[in-house]
Amino acid sequence: MVDINYNAVLEDIKPTEPEKKKVKDLLDKLIHIINKLAVKEGITAEAVLVGSVAKGTWLAGKADIDLFIKFPLNTEERYLKKWGLTLGHKCIEMMNGRAEERYASHPYVTGFINGCEIDFVPCYIIADSSQLKSAVDRTIPHTEYVKRNLKPNQADEVMLLKKFMGSVGTYGSEFKVGGFSGYLCELLVLRYGSFQGVLEAARDSWKPGCIIDLENYGTAELFDDPLIAVDPVDKNRNVAAALNLQKMSEFVVAAGNFLKNPSKEYFYPKNLEFDLSLIKEEFEKRGTKTFLLTFRPPEIPADAVYPQIKKTENSMAQVVEREGFKVLGSDSWTDENEKAVILLELETWKLPRVKKHLGPFIWSKDHQERFLEKYDNCAWVEGDRWVVEVPRKYENAEYFLNDILVENKIGYLQFGKHLKEEILKNHEIIDIIEFLESGKCDDNILEFLYMYLNRSELLWR
Amino acid sequence: MVDINYNAVLEDIKPTEPEKKKVKDLLDKLIHIINKLAVKEGITAEAVLVGSVAKGTWLAGKADIDLFIKFPLNTEERYLKKWGLTLGHKCIEMMNGRAEERYASHPYVTGFINGCEIDFVPCYIIADSSQLKSAVDRTIPHTEYVKRNLKPNQADEVMLLKKFMGSVGTYGSEFKVGGFSGYLCELLVLRYGSFQGVLEAARDSWKPGCIIDLENYGTAELFDDPLIAVDPVDKNRNVAAALNLQKMSEFVVAAGNFLKNPSKEYFYPKNLEFDLSLIKEEFEKRGTKTFLLTFRPPEIPADAVYPQIKKTENSMAQVVEREGFKVLGSDSWTDENEKAVILLELETWKLPRVKKHLGPFIWSKDHQERFLEKYDNCAWVEGDRWVVEVPRKYENAEYFLNDILVENKIGYLQFGKHLKEEILKNHEIIDIIEFLESGKCDDNILEFLYMYLNRSELLWR
Repeated sequence: MVDINYNAVLEDIKPTEPEKKKVKDLLDKLIHIINKLAVKEGITAEAVLVGSVAKGTWLAGKADIDLFIKFPLNTEERYLKKWGLTLGHKCIEMMNGRAEERYASHPYVTGFINGCEIDFVPCYIIADSSQLKSAVDRTIPHTEYVKRNLKPNQADEVMLLKKFMGSVGTYGSEFKVGGFSGYLCELLVLRYGSFQGVLEAARDSWKPGCIIDLENYGTAELFDDPLIAVDPVDKNRNVAAALNLQKMSEFVVAAGNFLKNPSKEYFYPKNLEFDLSLIKEEFEKRGTKTFLLTFRPPEIPADAVYPQIKKTENSMAQVVEREGFKVLGSDSWTDENEKAVILLELETWKLPRVKKHLGPFIWSKDHQERFLEKYDNCAWVEGDRWVVEVPRKYENAEYFLNDILVENKIGYLQFGKHLKEEILKNHEIIDIIEFLESGKCDDNILEFLYMYLNRSELLWR
Repeated sequence: MVDINYNAVLEDIKPTEPEKKKVKDLLDKLIHIINKLAVKEGITAEAVLVGSVAKGTWLAGKADIDLFIKFPLNTEERYLKKWGLTLGHKCIEMMNGRAEERYASHPYVTGFINGCEIDFVPCYIIADSSQLKSAVDRTIPHTEYVKRNLKPNQADEVMLLKKFMGSVGTYGSEFKVGGFSGYLCELLVLRYGSFQGVLEAARDSWKPGCIIDLENYGTAELFDDPLIAVDPVDKNRNVAAALNLQKMSEFVVAAGNFLKNPSKEYFYPKNLEFDLSLIKEEFEKRGTKTFLLTFRPPEIPADAVYPQIKKTENSMAQVVEREGFKVLGSDSWTDENEKAVILLELETWKLPRVKKHLGPFIWSKDHQERFLEKYDNCAWVEGDRWVVEVPRKYENAEYFLNDILVENKIGYLQFGKHLKEEILKNHEIIDIIEFLESGKCDDNILEFLYMYLNRSELLWR
C-alpha cells in the first residue's frame, strides 16, 4: 500500500463549499432562466447541466460549466441552432454577461457571467448512439452514465487522478497535449476502482493496444490506438482516440515513479527552475547546432494550430535529413496567439561539396543511357551500379532552411496550410545562441527550451 | 560490325617468330632434360608443357611458362613431391639457372633460366576430375581441352580478349584484381566464337548469375557467383569463382564502350596523366576529410595480403560509421613489399559532444530498471521508448582511428590477422593533404590516389 495522506491532497484540490455553492446557485439561476424563456417562447427545449460539474468530479478553481439545451430528436436542425443560440444569448443578457459565439461540431455560445465561463450548447435528446447527429449529443449520455455508475467515494478518486495527470503533463485530450480527457479518467476509475488502482494497472499491465471495455461490447478491434477505451454509450467510439503513445507512456512512467516513491508533490505543479544563462550554457556544451524558426501562429482554433505546427516541424526535420544533414531532435511551441517556435537541433549542419549519387544498375540499358548522357562519363561502377559524385546543392543547413522557407523553391515541405501563409508572410530563422542573446526570449519560450532539454522532467518528483 | 583493324593489333600483341622460337627451343631442351633424367633415375615421370604457351594463347613478352612433371596416379605423394622438386632442381642446375621453391596447393620450384621464368610443377595424371588430388592436377586436362577445342584462328581471338581485359583492368584471377583468368578467356571464346562475340554477349545478355556451361553439365546451380562458367573438365568447379561483381560489371561496361566507339587504344595501356598538385587540389575541392593509414604489408603471398587489406579497409569503414561518422568512400593499395595504404574519405568527421542513445521500451520492466539505474533519471520517453543523451566517446574521427589502431581498445575491428601485427607494430594515420605535402608520396601511390578519384577511367578510351 502506498503510504500517503490523500485526504490532505483532496482538501487542496476539491472545490470548497462556498465555491460549490456559488456555482450551484449560478447554475440553478441559469437553468431556471433558460427553461422559463423556452416556455415563454413556446420552444420545446430544456436546459440540463452536464460535464464535470454535473458529475461532481471538477477540481477547485476549474469549474468547467457546460449547460446543454436539449431538443427533441425530431427538431429541425436550423430551428435547434437558431433557438439554442437565442436562448443562450438572452440568458447571458439577462445576467448582464458578455457573450461570444464559438464553433465545435456545431455552434454554441459562451457567456462570461460573474467571473464564470459558461458554455450554452444546443443538442438533441438521443435514446442511443444510433441516433447521434453530432458529437455533442453524446455529452448528456456520458454525464448520465458516469452519474449512474460512479460510487459516491469514487468522485474523489477521479479528482486525484485528474490532478495527478495534470501535474505530470498528461491531462487533456486537446491536440496541444494529446493526453487523457476527463471522461476517460472517470472510465479508468470505474474500471480499476480507485486512483491507485488505475496507477497500478497502468504500471503493471498496460501495453500498446490495451483494452478497456466496461460494457463488454467486444468492438475494440475497430480501433488501432495505443489505448482503447470503448465508449459505454457508443460502442463505435474510442474514448482514448486522442491519447497518443507518448502521453500514454509518460503516464505509465509517472505512475511507476509515484508508486515507487509516493509523494504529495505529484499533485502540485512542479517548480521548474530555469535560467537563460544556464540554458544557453547547456546548448553550447552539447556541441550541436540548434535553429529556431519563429513566426506568428495563424488565427485558427488551438486544436487546428497544434497539428499544423507539428506537421511542419516533422516535415522540416525530414527534408533536412533527406538533404544529408542529421537531426538530433526537434520540438515546437506556441502561445496560440502571437508567437510560434519550431526548434531543430542538428548533429550535422555542414557537409562537403560533393555527394555520392547512386545511379541505375549497369544491366539496365535504357536507364543507363539516360544516366550517362546526363553525367557525361564522370560516372563510375560500384559493384554493378553506376555512381557519380555530384555537387551538393546545400552545404550548409542554415542556407537550406532559409531557402525552403522564403522562396519555397523546394516544394516537398509539408506545411500545415494556414501555417504556410503565415510563415511565407513573415518568419525568422535564428541560431539558438543568438536568439538567447537577443533579449527576445520571454519566460514562456525559456520554459519551452528548458523542457526540450529536460524532456521527462515532469514525470518525477 | 566493328570497324577496326584487328590485324594491326595482333601484330603488336602476338609473340614474334624469334620470340616463339626462343621459347620453343628452351622448352624442348627442358623437356628433353627432365625426361632423360627421369629415365636415368628410374622414375616413372614425364615433363609436359601446359598453360598459355602450350595452347598458343600467350601474349608477346608475357611467356608464362609452366612445365608440369606428371606422375601416374598410384605414385605415393611423398615420392611425387620429392622427385618432382628434385627433377626441377637438377634441370635448373644443368641449365645454369637460379632456383626458388614456392608453394601453391603443393610445392613447386621456379627456375630463372636465360631470362625466362619457368615453373616446374609435379602433378598426377588423372583420367577425370573424380581422381583429382590437388588443384594443379586439373591443369593438364585444361590445356588438353583447350587445345582440342580451340579452332586455329581462335587463338588470336583469345589474345585480343586477354589484351583488352588487361588494359581495361579486368584481367587476372588473383585477389589483387578479382578478374578473369586466362582459362576463363579461352572458355569465353569457345562459347561465343570470337573476341567480338564475347564483348557483344557481355553487353547484351550478361546479368549476375549468367551461366556458361560448354559441356551442358547442368551443375550451374551449385554456384552462387556473379558469373558461372562450369569447368568442362570438372563439373563441380566454377572457373569464374574468383571473378567479383565489380570486375564483371567493369568488363561489361568496357565491352559496351568499345563496341560503341571501337578503337585500337583499348588494347594498349592508357596513358594516365596525373600530377601531385592537381590531385591535392581535387581532394581539397571536395570538402571531405580523407585519411590514409600507411603500414608495411606482412611478408605473406600477395594472394593472402590483398584480402586481408580489403577486410581491414571494410572493417574500418564500418566501425567509423557505427561511431556516427559518415564514410564517402574507401580504397586500398600495396606494392606487396614495403608499403600498404588504406584510404578513408569522410563526409562527416566531427560530431557534437552528445549523442542520442535508444533504450528499452517502457513496457519492458526488467530492461527498464537496469537502464534507469545506469542513467540515473536523466532519461526521457520518446514514443514508448527510453532515450538518453550520452557524451560521445569520440567527437573526432581522427582520434577514433588512432585509438582503435594503436591501443586496440575497441576490439571489434576486423583485421586480417597478419596485418594486425604489422599495423600494431608500426603505422601512421595522416590527412591526405598533409601526406601529399610531405614528399612521401611516390608515383605508385599517386597513381592509386588518381585512380581513386577517377575510378572507372580505364573503362573508356
